[in-house]
Parts: sequence; C-alpha cells; structure tokens
Amino acid sequence: MNTFFKKNQFFAWFLLLSFLPKTGSCQDVYAPWRQQWLKLADELKPALTETIETPERMVNIITDQNAFQGWKTVPASSLTDLYATSFKTQKTVTLDFGKHITGYFSFNVATLKGTPDAPLKFKLTFGEVPSEIETPYDPYKGDLSRAWLQDEYITVMDIPSLVTISRRMAFRYVKIELLGSSQYFDFKIENLRCRAVSSVKTKPSALQPNAHDMIKKIDSVGLNTLKECMQTVYEDGPKRDRRLWIGDLYLESLANSYSFKNHDLTKRCQYLLAGLSDKNGYLVGTVFETPEPHPQAGQHLLDYSFLYNVTLKEYLTATNDYQTANSLWPVAKVQAEIAKSYILPNGLMDFEKAKKEWWLFFDWKEELDKSTALQGLTIYTLKQTYELAKLLKKEHELKELPELIRKMSQAARTNLYDSKLGLFTSGSKKQVSYASQIWMVLANVTSPAEAKLALRNITSHKEAVIPGAPYLYHFFISALIESGLKTEAKEALINYWGGMVKKGADTFWEVYDPNDAYLSPYHFFPINSYCHAWSCTPVYFIRKYPDIFQ
Amino acid sequence: MNTFFKKNQFFAWFLLLSFLPKTGSCQDVYAPWRQQWLKLADELKPALTETIETPERMVNIITDQNAFQGWKTVPASSLTDLYATSFKTQKTVTLDFGKHITGYFSFNVATLKGTPDAPLKFKLTFGEVPSEIETPYDPYKGDLSRAWLQDEYITVMDIPSLVTISRRMAFRYVKIELLGSSQYFDFKIENLRCRAVSSVKTKPSALQPNAHDMIKKIDSVGLNTLKECMQTVYEDGPKRDRRLWIGDLYLESLANSYSFKNHDLTKRCQYLLAGLSDKNGYLVGTVFETPEPHPQAGQHLLDYSFLYNVTLKEYLTATNDYQTANSLWPVAKVQAEIAKSYILPNGLMDFEKAKKEWWLFFDWKEELDKSTALQGLTIYTLKQTYELAKLLKKEHELKELPELIRKMSQAARTNLYDSKLGLFTSGSKKQVSYASQIWMVLANVTSPAEAKLALRNITSHKEAVIPGAPYLYHFFISALIESGLKTEAKEALINYWGGMVKKGADTFWEVYDPNDAYLSPYHFFPINSYCHAWSCTPVYFIRKYPDIFQ
Repeated sequence: MNTFFKKNQFFAWFLLLSFLPKTGSCQDVYAPWRQQWLKLADELKPALTETIETPERMVNIITDQNAFQGWKTVPASSLTDLYATSFKTQKTVTLDFGKHITGYFSFNVATLKGTPDAPLKFKLTFGEVPSEIETPYDPYKGDLSRAWLQDEYITVMDIPSLVTISRRMAFRYVKIELLGSSQYFDFKIENLRCRAVSSVKTKPSALQPNAHDMIKKIDSVGLNTLKECMQTVYEDGPKRDRRLWIGDLYLESLANSYSFKNHDLTKRCQYLLAGLSDKNGYLVGTVFETPEPHPQAGQHLLDYSFLYNVTLKEYLTATNDYQTANSLWPVAKVQAEIAKSYILPNGLMDFEKAKKEWWLFFDWKEELDKSTALQGLTIYTLKQTYELAKLLKKEHELKELPELIRKMSQAARTNLYDSKLGLFTSGSKKQVSYASQIWMVLANVTSPAEAKLALRNITSHKEAVIPGAPYLYHFFISALIESGLKTEAKEALINYWGGMVKKGADTFWEVYDPNDAYLSPYHFFPINSYCHAWSCTPVYFIRKYPDIFQ
Repeated sequence: MNTFFKKNQFFAWFLLLSFLPKTGSCQDVYAPWRQQWLKLADELKPALTETIETPERMVNIITDQNAFQGWKTVPASSLTDLYATSFKTQKTVTLDFGKHITGYFSFNVATLKGTPDAPLKFKLTFGEVPSEIETPYDPYKGDLSRAWLQDEYITVMDIPSLVTISRRMAFRYVKIELLGSSQYFDFKIENLRCRAVSSVKTKPSALQPNAHDMIKKIDSVGLNTLKECMQTVYEDGPKRDRRLWIGDLYLESLANSYSFKNHDLTKRCQYLLAGLSDKNGYLVGTVFETPEPHPQAGQHLLDYSFLYNVTLKEYLTATNDYQTANSLWPVAKVQAEIAKSYILPNGLMDFEKAKKEWWLFFDWKEELDKSTALQGLTIYTLKQTYELAKLLKKEHELKELPELIRKMSQAARTNLYDSKLGLFTSGSKKQVSYASQIWMVLANVTSPAEAKLALRNITSHKEAVIPGAPYLYHFFISALIESGLKTEAKEALINYWGGMVKKGADTFWEVYDPNDAYLSPYHFFPINSYCHAWSCTPVYFIRKYPDIFQ
C-alpha cells in the first residue's frame, strides 16, 4: 500500500488538483486509490460472532399510563408450559428474551396429537419495546417504509418443521399468533431461539467499582447499543436503516475506541465510505453493503462529510495507524477543500448556498436554524483536519487553514454572539438553540468564561430550541466537558440517558424527548429505532473521562 | 421381485392367514413385502417436468351477479405497462395467467429511480377462481386450516432482488398489493413468472375432429385438471390437501389410462398405499410424502379401501403388469376379507357396525343414508376382486366369493328394491338417493330394464338426495353407461361438467352444485379446491367410450 501510494503520488495529486473544482467532471479524483480502498474494505469485512439466545420468560403486554409509551410487561405462564402444551389452546403468546437481540429467529413445530393434515399459519411481531408489539400498524401513517415494521406472516407447510425467519430481526419481545391450524391434529412449538449476531468479539473492562449506580447502568445499556449496531459495518440501527452513516460511524467509533476496541471495523467503514464516494471526491452520507457495496446516490450531508475528517483524526489518535490515515488523507483534504469553498470573504459560511446544495442535518429538529451550528462545526472540522495534517506531517498542504480558522472564529464572535444574552444566536430571527451554543463552544471561539456562560444560559432559556435526538445531545455533553462544566456534564448525562434507563431502555433510542414518549421524526413512533448507534456515546464519555463520570 | 415372492410365499401366507383376524396384533401381516413396496414406491417417484409460465394479461376482478360466485375478470392495463411503470403508482395489480398453474411463483424487483433505502412489503393472493382473490378471508369461519388459503405476505429486504415464493401455489390469478415502500426511491416489478410442475410428460391423442364442441372443451378441462393433480403422487388437489387419497387415485388412474398413460405413477401410488397400510392389513385412506412417506394414522375409509382392489384390477387390465398385480395381491385379498367380515348371514352388510368402525364417504352429503350404497359397492368390489383373482389365476384363494356375491345381490334385491317406485331405498326411512341407484346398478343386481328404470326414475324423483360432488357424479355416469343409457350418459356429462365449463372452469372443481355456487363442505367456499382430481373423469369416459361421447 505505501509503495503504491509513493509510486502514484505525482499522478494522484495531479488528478486531485486538476479535477476537484469541476464537480460535474467524469474524472475520478480518487482514481489512483479507489479500488484499493474498496478491496481493503472488503478484506476487513468481519466474520460475525454468533450466539444462540433463548427467551427468558413469557409475558403479557398491558396498558399502563405510567409506563413508557403506555405499555408494560407483566409475567405470563411459564416457558415450560408453553413448550409442553398444545399451541392451539394457547393461540397467542409473547416472549421476552430479557435483552435486545439482533439475529435470526427460529422455532420448531412438532406434532402433539394426530397426523398433521394441513399447513399452519402464524403472525410474528418483533418489538424492541413493548409498544411495538401492541400498537396496530395499519392503516399505516408513517413516513418511512411500512416494511421496516417487524411483523411477518409465515405458512408452515410441513410438520414437524424447523421454522426460520430469513429476515434479520432486532427485538427483545416476540408475539406469536396462530392464524391457521387444522382441527384434525394438535401441535406444540419448541426450541424458540435466536441466532444472535454481532461483530463484537471482546469484553470491555469493568467500570470503577464505586462508580455511580446509574452511570454503571447507562454504560451497560450503551455497550449493548453499540454491540447490537456493530455488524459488518457500524450500522445506525439494527432494526431500521441497518446501514453505515458517517455521523453514526463517528460516534460509534469513539465509543468503540473506549470499549470493544474493534478498530478494524472503523478502518473498514472509513475505507468503504471513501471507496463509495462520488468521483468529484464528495462523500456520500450513507452506503449499503448488499447486493454489493454501493452508496445512496446523491445523499450528501455536509455536516456528516466534515465529521469524516474528525473520525479519521480520532482513529489515528486511538490506533497510531498512520498507514490508513495516510491512505485516506486525500479524502480528508477534499472535505477541507469543500469547507473552504463555502467561506465568504467576511469569514462566515455561505449558509444559504450550503443549504441549497446539501442536506444539513445536525439534529432531528425541523425548526432549528442551522447557520450558526454550521459555522461552529466548520471551524471545529478545519481545526481537527489541521491537527490530522500535522500528525501526518502534511500541514503544508493546508497551510492556509490556521488563518482561515482565526478569521472564521472572529466572524462568529462578531456576528453571532449576543453578549447581552450571553448566547450565540442563529439566522436573521436570531434563534437561540442548544445546537448553536454547542458548536460554538466546540469550535472554541469564545473565552472559557463565555463558553460556560453560554451553556449555562441555554439550559434556562425558555425559548431555546432543545435537542431533538441523542445525536445532538452527544455534542452537548462534549461541549460541557470542553468548557470545564464537569458536574453539569455528569448531571446532563445521567438525566438524559438515565431517563431512558428509568423508562426501561435495554438499548438507547434513536429519538428521546423526556417529555414526549411518542415523538417520531417519521410520524409513527413504532417505526423509531430503539437501538440506535448515535445514542451509545455515554460509553465514550464515561470511559474516557472517569474522573468526571465514575 | 418375482423370485423374492416365490421364496417367501409360504412364510408370507402363513403370516397373512395367522394374523388377519387379530386387528390389534402387533405382527405385520405384510411383513414379507412392506419394505419392498416402499422401496419400489420410492424408486418410482417421478422427476417433475418444469415449465416457465408467464402471465397472459392483467385484469380487474369486479362484481357481476351473473358470473360464477359473483365475480368476473375484465381486462386492465397491459403487461408492458406493468413492467415499464413505477409499481408505487400501480400499488395493486391482478395477473391472469390464462390457465391453471401449479408451481413456484417469482418475480424480480428492480430500481427505477434513486437508491433503495428501505425494504418493500407485498401481499400476494393466489386464486384458482376470481372469487378467491376478492373475498375477504378474515375473520375466518371455515372448518379447514386457514393456512390453506393462498395469501402470503413478503418483505423484500434487498433491491434489486429475485423474489420467490417458496410455497407451491395453485392458481390462475395473482393479486399483488404493495403494503410498504419508501418515498426515497422508486421501483418496478419485472419478469413475473411461475415455474410450473407436473409429472405429466406426454400429450394425449386428440379427440375425433367432429366431436361435440362442448365435449372437446370438457375433455380439455379434464386433462388440465388431471395434469395439475399429477405430481409426485396423484394429488387430490394441488391447492388443498395436496396428497394421495385412494378414492382420487382410483379416478385419476382411470383417466390417466386413457390420456397421459403415466402408469408408473399409478404403480407408485399403489405401492405407497400398500407400504403405508396398518400392520393388520387395513389401508389408510390418505398418505403424505413429506418429510418422509407416512399415513394419516387412523384415517380408515371403507369405501376407499374397497376401491383399492378395483384400482389394481383396472391397472392390470390397462398395463398387463402382472408382476405388480401379483406383488400387491395380498392387499387386495385382505380388503376382500375385510368386506366379508361385515356380511351378515342374511347377505346384507352390517351397516351399523361398519359405520361405527369406519368413515364411509361415498359423497359430500351429510344427509345421505349410505347403507344401500355400501351394499352395492361391496358387491361391486367383490366382483372386481374376483375378476382380478381370475386374471392372476388365484380364484381358488377366494373361491367363496361367487356364492357370497350371489347371496348379497339377492339380499339387495329382496330388501332394498322398491318395485312400486322402481327405485332402491336406503335405511329405515327408505331414503331415495342417487347414490343408492348408482351403486346397485354398478353392482348389477337388477335386470337391465330395472337398472334403466331406477336411473331414469331417480332423475325425476323430487325428494331424491342428489350428488354433492363430482366424485359421486362419476359413478352416476358409469352407471348410466353400464345400464346402456348412452344418450342420458352423454347428456348428464355435458350438463354437469359442461355447466362448470360454461361458468368459466379452467379445471374441474371439488364441489359443484349447479344451483349453489357457494356450496362448501368446509363452510367457506374460497377454501374449496377448484382443481380437483376426482372431477377429471370425463377424460376417461370421453376417451374410453368414443361412440357415446364423441
């Protein structure tokens, strides 16, 4: 690899510099490396660890207005009874596997009486949380494909039979309903199980014995979340989307570095994203593995693209894998060039242009004005990219960055900071949001005192646009730590992720608003992912900063 | 095989004669032959002929009170449009394959626009007749397993994808409904097809060119029916039950002898039934092939058991396969012994005893008194068995039969014939039914004139119990031919089977009452089989008796 890069260096940079500005060009700016990146990604594809999981108990799921989303489980009859008794007399059962599982569900059907003379029909419903089992799905009103909901009908033609659901399911609960059987024979179901899969192969170290009890719980749920999402790529969620996004990769790789240390998965995902980028060097926000690796064409997220650079820098710091960092440096450099191309002469990002040309995510929050957050994230990214360049001794390639960062920081302070409020505002309506404070603090454009003030003020600001999802909450905790608000960081982490734990989370959720259990960016809460990668980062905070959290 | 039988002859007959009366005995009366029978059955298992069938057109199924069961098809948009157009805009389509098909349905899903980012969910409904597509199945009120109904839900996780329904379906129509898709990509379906299977490998000869037009149509529909039911056994119906029954075997093998001439299938089925009989020599009415060949334990049908002997005799006549007939002679002999054991000293069958110990089928007709029919069938069976014995030069083994037949015939005439009515009656209430006349005529206990009279009288008898299914109608046509009522036989065949043809039958139905399109022995007409083996016998009549029917 190194030899390859040396040999092709001249040609490569010629290509990169020649074609970068021409976004419509059919020349591939990564031509010298792309096939090698894809090959390496493929070689790094992990074999999955398989374990056979069995249900822990049978439950009924009943309404309870005090329970999360109005549903809770209560014990039902025993598994021994389930296995010994005619399923025709049971008809509907709900199993609780006791924890979140990602894998392939199966069971046996065996004759109890008579000779089977007809097929059986079952409906199976898999849920990560109890509400998914009992909430009717139809008529379906959600925005995302109805097919993500994990209900499957199966016809069993032969008895005895091993029934395996070919679709990989993510669940803790399974409801089995008998929809068709014959009066001329009886049967039982046996050996309910799930072949659970994950690419996690190691056990992370234990926390300090005297760690806060809730911190231990949060760490444990975070580890489960991460483990479930670590498959042949870092998936965003094992139930829904089930694919690699740059933003999730960034957060998962941080948590992984402080827990399972499966750095090869991070490496694979970085290569995969690089290999599947556009010919003009733009990264695609999300890629798919099957039937063969391919990007979601046209899915360009500016903030995610920037975080690719941060991911690579963090990866290098965690692993000292200079070979990979050097190999992928062209990608980081292109992203920095992209960032530069949006900086106006006054040092502010051209938000309107960026908004037109990219998806700016930042958070699930429709009303959020993202201009200040974009300014902060860009500064942060350029700083991290420059750090990466220095580690690779390539700062000469981006020697304009320090001055650009200074100019952008000054512009932010001048134009976006409201010293009367002690807060950053965003947009012409001077919107006050968590996102703006977070990214300005992380960009380090203020004095330490102003940073503390902004983060304290935002929590008491009545009209502040609050985070819509744990994704942004991660950066909030980061900003609190960055500004030295250690107690507040711990409190915020315990309140937010501990809130999910108290509500029964086995894995952390894609969406969590402490005041609205039914919030869904997709307008149907059962289709939310309840095991979502971007929510796993307490693992990172708790383990990276034991003095704060343990 | 012959050597084997000669060597074991003494031991075999010793066993047979020693253990036959002890029905509870754990000794196997067929011990010397059973494994060989099963081995031969297995060796004769046919490889299926596969053909790829494609839909002929797209249709809409709409209500029409003049159509069969209230539904008819009308043309919809073209297949070219279907394949070229976004399926998201079509959502629901119904395909018409133009004929009945038994096989494995598949189609391709291909991207039309964007990158697939979510699974698809479809509901597929397969119907032999239009009503099956549009009648709601739930809440299900039928007697047989709901799982026989051919609706399947599928989730397609990857796109592009080849979707194959693993369950073998029997259908002419398929409705495809889109239940889940993503707003972020569009797709089309392509290459709709069915891998059709049948063990038919030959084409039967054409009818006489000047044959009656409806006779040609009936013959054609009958051939289709038989072909679809001829799989690795003679199935009763490819949609429902999908297994070998003695009664269906008898009728299918008759039709086969005059059409496809796949005598090995008849041979295989006879061996399979023999091999899977009870240890006391009783045949089981129906057997299954998977996961390994096994009988439906305890399913004893007296009339079907008797027809096994008739099947064997017909098979020998059609093939001159003396080896098989000799090999299976012990089974025929046991069935004759069973018959004998129910004959009362007065020459009548002990109907009450038989009814207690056996399922007496004869017809789907709850109110039918079956005692006279049983008397007739028993006489018929003993005559046929004696014919078989003579062909095998084994009449000495059943030398009591001629006298028994004479005595039973006399008893029937004396006790069951009402000379004033010119009809046979059945039971203490002197029920008048088609079944009684049919079996008495076939048993040949009357003069030719009386036979003709009974069959003519029954058609005009207002309180007569009419046939409930084509199965009994077969024997009605047989009886008409037997008594020389050729015109009536042709008329009856044209009226009855032609009635189905006029109502749109592609294959003949399990149940057909010209006056009640919704009749179902299972209390839900969509679960009836609309391609049913026992309805295929016009093929036999038309081709065996060209002078009558062509």
